Amino acid sequence: MSVPAAELRAMLRARELGASVLGTTSPNPAVGAVVLAADGTPVGEGATAPPGGPHAEVAALARAGERARGGTAVVTLEPCAHTGRTGPCADALIAAGVARVVVAVPEPTELAGGGADRLRAAGIDVELGVDRDAAEEGALAAWLTGVREQRPFVVWKVAATLDGRVAAADGTSRWITGERARAAVHRLRATCDAVVVGSGTALADDPQLTVRDAAGAATGRQPLRVVVDRRGRVPAAARVRDDAAPTLVSRAGTPAELLAELYARDVRRVLLEGGPTLAAEFLRAELVDEVLVHLAPVVLGAGPSLVGDLGIPTMADALSLRIVDSIPLDGDLQIRLRPTRHTGGDQHAGGGS
Amino acid sequence: MSVPAAELRAMLRARELGASVLGTTSPNPAVGAVVLAADGTPVGEGATAPPGGPHAEVAALARAGERARGGTAVVTLEPCAHTGRTGPCADALIAAGVARVVVAVPEPTELAGGGADRLRAAGIDVELGVDRDAAEEGALAAWLTGVREQRPFVVWKVAATLDGRVAAADGTSRWITGERARAAVHRLRATCDAVVVGSGTALADDPQLTVRDAAGAATGRQPLRVVVDRRGRVPAAARVRDDAAPTLVSRAGTPAELLAELYARDVRRVLLEGGPTLAAEFLRAELVDEVLVHLAPVVLGAGPSLVGDLGIPTMADALSLRIVDSIPLDGDLQIRLRPTRHTGGDQHAGGGS
Repeated sequence: MSVPAAELRAMLRARELGASVLGTTSPNPAVGAVVLAADGTPVGEGATAPPGGPHAEVAALARAGERARGGTAVVTLEPCAHTGRTGPCADALIAAGVARVVVAVPEPTELAGGGADRLRAAGIDVELGVDRDAAEEGALAAWLTGVREQRPFVVWKVAATLDGRVAAADGTSRWITGERARAAVHRLRATCDAVVVGSGTALADDPQLTVRDAAGAATGRQPLRVVVDRRGRVPAAARVRDDAAPTLVSRAGTPAELLAELYARDVRRVLLEGGPTLAAEFLRAELVDEVLVHLAPVVLGAGPSLVGDLGIPTMADALSLRIVDSIPLDGDLQIRLRPTRHTGGDQHAGGGS
Repeated sequence: MSVPAAELRAMLRARELGASVLGTTSPNPAVGAVVLAADGTPVGEGATAPPGGPHAEVAALARAGERARGGTAVVTLEPCAHTGRTGPCADALIAAGVARVVVAVPEPTELAGGGADRLRAAGIDVELGVDRDAAEEGALAAWLTGVREQRPFVVWKVAATLDGRVAAADGTSRWITGERARAAVHRLRATCDAVVVGSGTALADDPQLTVRDAAGAATGRQPLRVVVDRRGRVPAAARVRDDAAPTLVSRAGTPAELLAELYARDVRRVLLEGGPTLAAEFLRAELVDEVLVHLAPVVLGAGPSLVGDLGIPTMADALSLRIVDSIPLDGDLQIRLRPTRHTGGDQHAGGGS
């Protein structure tokens, strides 16, 4: 497969466009698209609109107008061939007269599949699988997890000290991390369909769990707030139950039950902000897909650990992750990790070697 | 102060040269020097030899030979003006006919001071304080701590899991981190004059604490192995007491007492490899100058924490550090930190904000 540099640049941009709408498209995928004119010049960009609105390709074609004719559409997911709330994107591409379509991820569902075939039948050159891994690990990861496992993608976010504590001995925890790390949490919430805490966190910290700007004002669309409260301990006056955003008080007995409940509500990306107990339940159930640790350069020497008991007796059984990246953030370190279970494990990770 | 780019490059190289002999020069400073010919070309490099051998400037001048005449000597520490085991470096520079001497750190001791004055009196142009902070935080940090506080510089190195644990619930800890991280520990030991553990670590892990290569063979100079063993618990058969390297079994009652004992033995840079109890004693006494955390991307959920109780009750009293850098290492993350106490604290760090 030989793909021109202009198309690879366009694909990178398409991934960015998809990521920019993450959290606003569920249950649809967060797709990005770029249209290049026949001479390779970018002439239109698009990303999936909220459900009912245009898909990424259609938005990009609308911007490009006549300049799309004879050009190339670069898109992170195979254009759909079915008519849902919007018409088939494949037909829109054919009507616009593009000569070539470059796709990162083939459509994994039967319902929407067949787009590439329909394009090829119309004489359009189609390239599938360009930078596929990057697209699958990016903005499409949550939606793909839904397709493959019929459950939402789970991001566990935790702010901890260097010695792995989420609070001091007296329970104080605000603020472990710096101003910019807290702003990053609000941006992260905005990329999710739901934010989940346990009753312990709701009672101890009384968080509002909304997406707020630097001045503390709620901004734009708010994710569903979810409190796992099996014993009905969280009072109606708790901030998480105010009217700033929708709230679900769930009595789900296990993480899998909770995720099924959320999936049925079209939630595809969940931010787990709960305390050590809830985190341990999700980790034990192998239902964490990404871990975001905001590590503050402080040492406490006492206080609750970031995760509760996992029933792991010995080093060889340690739960093994892979560091995706780590970014300095306002004096803190933000470390992103993914479990190694899906990829069969890294050579170096875990104990016993 | 305007310093030509060639001299700044030479100073960077001089710092590297100094760092390359860290751990072999104590009680002398690990200095690096580069001689530039009159046209700015590097013509000689040098670093402090072990005690009794030539200083960095003298080694660099020897390599440069006649090409030093009319040139510039770039050196991390002000050339000495006194005769110790070697002659004054200032006189060597004058004899070599250099026109200019560029220095990062002014000599802080009265005994060796006066080098710049002597050079200037000989008509040489002297520039002091070039990239001084970088040199002070680099290979000269240990020696400067000795001059200022009459104690060795202390590096606390610890390998921990993401949840801040140094071992699993059953006590197993080998290997938390990967192969390259372990190789890095051996390189780190080689930069220190002494490696310190408590009797708990000596008994639990029975470490040899030597500098070894990938094949496990002891390499070159070995740092002094120190076991803090107040109650005489470590048996003569412990590996730390074998004949692979010198060993000191200390009954020092406090970290300050131990450091005084080591300082008197010309130790200027100490690697603290002890467990949570010894680390907590040093942190509480504010006698840790640098923290090196090898963070492994695994989660245990139980097991001893990387540091014992510090008597910190609330978040606002958290011991605050500053991240100097963080480096991916074989799937792990190596995070280097320094206490904020010396610099008056960062705005963002600590709690309560």
